Amino acid sequence: MGQDFRAALHVTSVVGLILAAAMFVPALVNFGDGHDSWPDFAMAALLTGLSWGMIAAATHGATAPFTPRFGIVLVNMLWWVLPVSVIGPLVLGPAQLSIPAAIFETASGFTTTGSTVITGLDGLDHGTLVWRSLLQWFGGTGILSLGLIVLPFLNVGGLQLFRLESSDRSEKVLPRAAAIIRAIVVIYVGLTAACALGYRVTGMSPFDAINHAMTTLSTGGFSTHDASMGYFTNTATLWVGSFFMALAGLPFTLFVALLLSRKNVRLDPQVIWFFAIIAATTLILLLFRSGDAVLSPRSLAEDVFNVISVITTTGFAANDYTTWGPLAGPLFFLLTFFGGCAGSTAGGLKIYRLIVLWKMVRGALKELIHPHGVFPMRYGTERIDPLIFNAALVMSVSFAGFLGLTTLVLGAQGNDFVTALSGALTALANVGPGLGEVIGPASTFKGLPSSSLLVLAAAMIVGRLEIMVVLALFMRQLWR
Amino acid sequence: MGQDFRAALHVTSVVGLILAAAMFVPALVNFGDGHDSWPDFAMAALLTGLSWGMIAAATHGATAPFTPRFGIVLVNMLWWVLPVSVIGPLVLGPAQLSIPAAIFETASGFTTTGSTVITGLDGLDHGTLVWRSLLQWFGGTGILSLGLIVLPFLNVGGLQLFRLESSDRSEKVLPRAAAIIRAIVVIYVGLTAACALGYRVTGMSPFDAINHAMTTLSTGGFSTHDASMGYFTNTATLWVGSFFMALAGLPFTLFVALLLSRKNVRLDPQVIWFFAIIAATTLILLLFRSGDAVLSPRSLAEDVFNVISVITTTGFAANDYTTWGPLAGPLFFLLTFFGGCAGSTAGGLKIYRLIVLWKMVRGALKELIHPHGVFPMRYGTERIDPLIFNAALVMSVSFAGFLGLTTLVLGAQGNDFVTALSGALTALANVGPGLGEVIGPASTFKGLPSSSLLVLAAAMIVGRLEIMVVLALFMRQLWR
Repeated sequence: MGQDFRAALHVTSVVGLILAAAMFVPALVNFGDGHDSWPDFAMAALLTGLSWGMIAAATHGATAPFTPRFGIVLVNMLWWVLPVSVIGPLVLGPAQLSIPAAIFETASGFTTTGSTVITGLDGLDHGTLVWRSLLQWFGGTGILSLGLIVLPFLNVGGLQLFRLESSDRSEKVLPRAAAIIRAIVVIYVGLTAACALGYRVTGMSPFDAINHAMTTLSTGGFSTHDASMGYFTNTATLWVGSFFMALAGLPFTLFVALLLSRKNVRLDPQVIWFFAIIAATTLILLLFRSGDAVLSPRSLAEDVFNVISVITTTGFAANDYTTWGPLAGPLFFLLTFFGGCAGSTAGGLKIYRLIVLWKMVRGALKELIHPHGVFPMRYGTERIDPLIFNAALVMSVSFAGFLGLTTLVLGAQGNDFVTALSGALTALANVGPGLGEVIGPASTFKGLPSSSLLVLAAAMIVGRLEIMVVLALFMRQLWR
Repeated sequence: MGQDFRAALHVTSVVGLILAAAMFVPALVNFGDGHDSWPDFAMAALLTGLSWGMIAAATHGATAPFTPRFGIVLVNMLWWVLPVSVIGPLVLGPAQLSIPAAIFETASGFTTTGSTVITGLDGLDHGTLVWRSLLQWFGGTGILSLGLIVLPFLNVGGLQLFRLESSDRSEKVLPRAAAIIRAIVVIYVGLTAACALGYRVTGMSPFDAINHAMTTLSTGGFSTHDASMGYFTNTATLWVGSFFMALAGLPFTLFVALLLSRKNVRLDPQVIWFFAIIAATTLILLLFRSGDAVLSPRSLAEDVFNVISVITTTGFAANDYTTWGPLAGPLFFLLTFFGGCAGSTAGGLKIYRLIVLWKMVRGALKELIHPHGVFPMRYGTERIDPLIFNAALVMSVSFAGFLGLTTLVLGAQGNDFVTALSGALTALANVGPGLGEVIGPASTFKGLPSSSLLVLAAAMIVGRLEIMVVLALFMRQLWR
């Protein structure tokens, strides 16, 4: 165990050093703007870098075989320790957040949730804004590595369905992992650049375009304006956003396979369902949306944008959708559970789990009618081991359990029922906005008590790690 | 299929005749009270009896082998057709309900949910009140037969764990079923009488004691007073209610086994957890309850009573628990999911399913850490087929799916989010009160539109049939 711990700490410290170096970006931006806060960011970079540097030196040479135990320890350390260690820019910089608020904002960034405690974004210095975007952008790469390599290796929540090769659970995993991570980075950078270009062409300033591109591809949803995407009046901007959010909600395996020029890229059923659900919910919303301008090009763009924003768990708002008649609240609440495809930066339960759940219910009904029949489980055309289906089901149940627990704790902290429930859900699913007056899409999380901010930050990380990896920490089998 | 249908219709018509005969009870009660509405009840009895009598005659002699298909058709017919066919007393009698409201109230009675659309219970004629209590009391016997015989036979939702004999799925099922139903009726009548005596001794009028005993043992929760159990100022009344609600939440197999003087009655883990959850939630509520009189004997009795009332899905209210500080709302919301033990009249997911879910999560975590380990599933000390565990899981997932769907439909009908969500949950779990201003424990369902009342009535029946039996109707395999 000690060796696993030291090796995990070493990997974490290397990532910590990279993030410390990234803090020079806001320092440079504010220096360029002539904003006198740039030394604060430099100071944060030095302090963070020094701390992680010492830890990196102390753990130098520590290695451990890549066992399930090491995977669990490493992933938990990366996601629990790093966010807390890089709150410097938000505490020391012009944002002047309290420590709990900074932990919330940083966790919301890394997990690409996109909930914020900051109001007055329009008047904020560019350094702080670009730092928030960078948090989400870096978080996105972390999530992709997690979802494409680590979780399938660990057999978490049925994700082994999406292993790139059936032999991934072997010694060859590390060299292949390096090749995949390189491919991910190339694709991710390329798509971000394309998205920024799209935003720029449709009228965003260069600064806004770059920031929103970073938080679009990571399905994060931090904006540089309080009105979020509603700030941009050109309807084409919403379509650009919808397009790239949808791409970011697709499995990156698809892009990786295309880039590594593999043959027979199979069309995953979750991709078909992803688009079917977007189309169906948009249609339902259009039919039931009450009020003015129901069928204008702008309202259509807003509907599509908001649906994709919630289902991909990005959390940008084109406007306050909870005012769209009585159906919108429950519908967006349900969409929050869904999430994008496995192998994307999106959170939530993920579409493929919904497919699996649906298939299991159908299978059970067939058995009810024909108790002696044999009904093999399929995903697409492939026959699947029922145990994989089971893992997907177990993760969904754990999700529901954590949702209940988090709601209860938030309730005990004095939050009203809608805030507690929708806050717990939006955090666990890594979406961003909640429901109701306090944390709805027209508001921020600033009004919550510090203790609730910490609970929500923890819930974001638990959700991001697909719950099971965190729960494993509580098993005495891990520590033996 | 035609034969199954005719045979099921015959059984349904016999039960319909019994219920028609039962309508003479309110007629007699109001005749005795000198209330001039007694002919209305007699008229309802004759109309209902005549209709079902003709159907019984037309289907005379129709039989079908007791196959899964026949079980599914019979159960659906009993629970969908009967409630609608016996709305006479509430439409023609002094309650003068509209047809949707009467369907809601009757479904709420039969499914022992206990939600009501009637205000001014204190001023209502005794005939209508006793009819509502009878609906729940008869509903209770139906649920026990369903839960102890039909659903385990059909292997629904993991209930085969609770088969009385491992050979139940055989030709011997019918004679044994008759013996079990007799035992159930004896126990049910005996416990109701004891409960009525307990209520009478602690100060209820004979009429109130009999009515509340019927709705206590059926975990129904209809009351003869708008203030529900809060009407009775003697604290001992609450303890009597708590005791008998808890008994009604226990598996009737336990009582049946005792009555048929079987040896080695094993203590089911769900019974232990049932009491553990009651104790734990009561303690949490006491710790977090804000306001006056936190530790008086009355407040302790109210806490225990309300917790047992919600977990057994009875739905009596000792007072408006949603005013007990911020934790009470979320806590009672969660308790609503739980439900009592399998083989009782309680609704909800049932404790044993929660145990199964918990074990599956633990098993998955062990496999995460030791991928090659073998971890058998146990329920208590017995090793259980993972497929049974799976069935319990699938039913829970279907429950969640139906909860989302019902919430969505109620939202589309214009209800606010809390009303839609808590209304859908309280109906599917057969509890009674919802949350919020409109349908909270201090209110009734009178304020909802007729269309929502019908949706909720359907949800109650879907929940009562453990969902899967209803879903089976939509499988083309059933109709082939």
